[in-house]
Amino acid sequence: MFAEILTIGDELLTGNTVDSNSAFIAQKLTEKGYWVKRKTTVGDDVEEIKSAVQEVLARKPEVLVISGGLGPTHDDVTMLAVAGALNRKLVLCEGCLERIKAFYRGLYEKGLIDDPELNDARRKMAYLPEGAVPLENTEGAAPGAYIEHGGVRIFVLPGMPREMRAMLEREVLPRLGERKFVQRKLLAEITDESKLAPILNETLKRFKVRIHSSPKGFGKYIGIIIFGESEEEIERAKALMEEMGVRFGEGW
Amino acid sequence: MFAEILTIGDELLTGNTVDSNSAFIAQKLTEKGYWVKRKTTVGDDVEEIKSAVQEVLARKPEVLVISGGLGPTHDDVTMLAVAGALNRKLVLCEGCLERIKAFYRGLYEKGLIDDPELNDARRKMAYLPEGAVPLENTEGAAPGAYIEHGGVRIFVLPGMPREMRAMLEREVLPRLGERKFVQRKLLAEITDESKLAPILNETLKRFKVRIHSSPKGFGKYIGIIIFGESEEEIERAKALMEEMGVRFGEGW
Repeated sequence: MFAEILTIGDELLTGNTVDSNSAFIAQKLTEKGYWVKRKTTVGDDVEEIKSAVQEVLARKPEVLVISGGLGPTHDDVTMLAVAGALNRKLVLCEGCLERIKAFYRGLYEKGLIDDPELNDARRKMAYLPEGAVPLENTEGAAPGAYIEHGGVRIFVLPGMPREMRAMLEREVLPRLGERKFVQRKLLAEITDESKLAPILNETLKRFKVRIHSSPKGFGKYIGIIIFGESEEEIERAKALMEEMGVRFGEGW
Repeated sequence: MFAEILTIGDELLTGNTVDSNSAFIAQKLTEKGYWVKRKTTVGDDVEEIKSAVQEVLARKPEVLVISGGLGPTHDDVTMLAVAGALNRKLVLCEGCLERIKAFYRGLYEKGLIDDPELNDARRKMAYLPEGAVPLENTEGAAPGAYIEHGGVRIFVLPGMPREMRAMLEREVLPRLGERKFVQRKLLAEITDESKLAPILNETLKRFKVRIHSSPKGFGKYIGIIIFGESEEEIERAKALMEEMGVRFGEGW
């Protein structure tokens, strides 16, 4: 089960913001048993977003999570671009409009904004690609969208981390099934890294796990992460590796 | 002048590591006057990296900075994949091999590793795509590579942040010319965001600047970043925006 992540925002491309969103999304998708194969970041530009979405769709992942560019400002163009990429119209979501109205009224009543009324910028956020299921934003104004298109399940989320995280947890993950991957981080002491590759390959062949390795401490240690559907499967994979001569230590 | 960034590593796709490298590279390229149009992240997989590199090259940026996957372990396959993408052979860099040998001897003398000798894994790092200029790694073993290919200047850097940063500062940025962009962050108070777009467009037309905006505080404020070749040009752009009715406050 493959997934891709697309994050959107000029601030990510000027280095003014570190893209922690995509790491969070990647972690959650990995825990659900998805293999995130690629992350892409483009700016707040309709054509750039459109191209990126179409390229992802051509690679046919099971899931595509998009984050960023749902707000009221002129450079929030993600929904427009996604609709364009899917050759769908943007249509008004009446329920979303009501929620947006209530959201700004709430902010006004708390004294956070001067004007509670809907204007074009705020109204814009209620338009979703035709056929999309709106995703509730418990932390902000802009709804997200869930769209099934050509076998790809597309989730469009806000870019503000608090909003994105809440929507991912409440609206996205429950739609991705019950399966839960666990991961175990281990530190392997190894003198010759070339001996590790055949051991990893044998382990991968025998058990339903994924294994990542990365060197630690100038190659004296190898950090190993084993992903699997259960602690027991991971334990069995670890036991085989030990049998084949890998010595695991504590810490990472 | 467009640029792209490609970061490589499974740990970025499982959310175990936040990709701060690409933000750092983006910031430095932006300061040099490059417009980073896209960032891509793929795993430690020859075919994935190869595809990603070829897709970037087809978009013809002036500069492509690649980071990650240069180490000694079996999943460090970036140089192999880059060579494949460019249809070049991997060839031994004798000078690099000498440096790698000296590097491990140094670690051994400091008591950090048990074995100072070159083995296949360590020797692997001395192979670069044919025609590449080696880039010195002052902080680690693996050299980087600078390759001109079809009008694209490609820089291949390590993934360890300390090594990547040093190589970027010492080996990459000096090759990107003298030009230096500056940026100014401003906070604009605005009641109707829709009034801002025409002001931004007029400013962009009259001055050689880039402007990014993002909402702050539920749309009451707009965070504005102006990029330009000089403080004076930015000051003139700011003055025009004020003339047209934007009120700038302190802080961001």
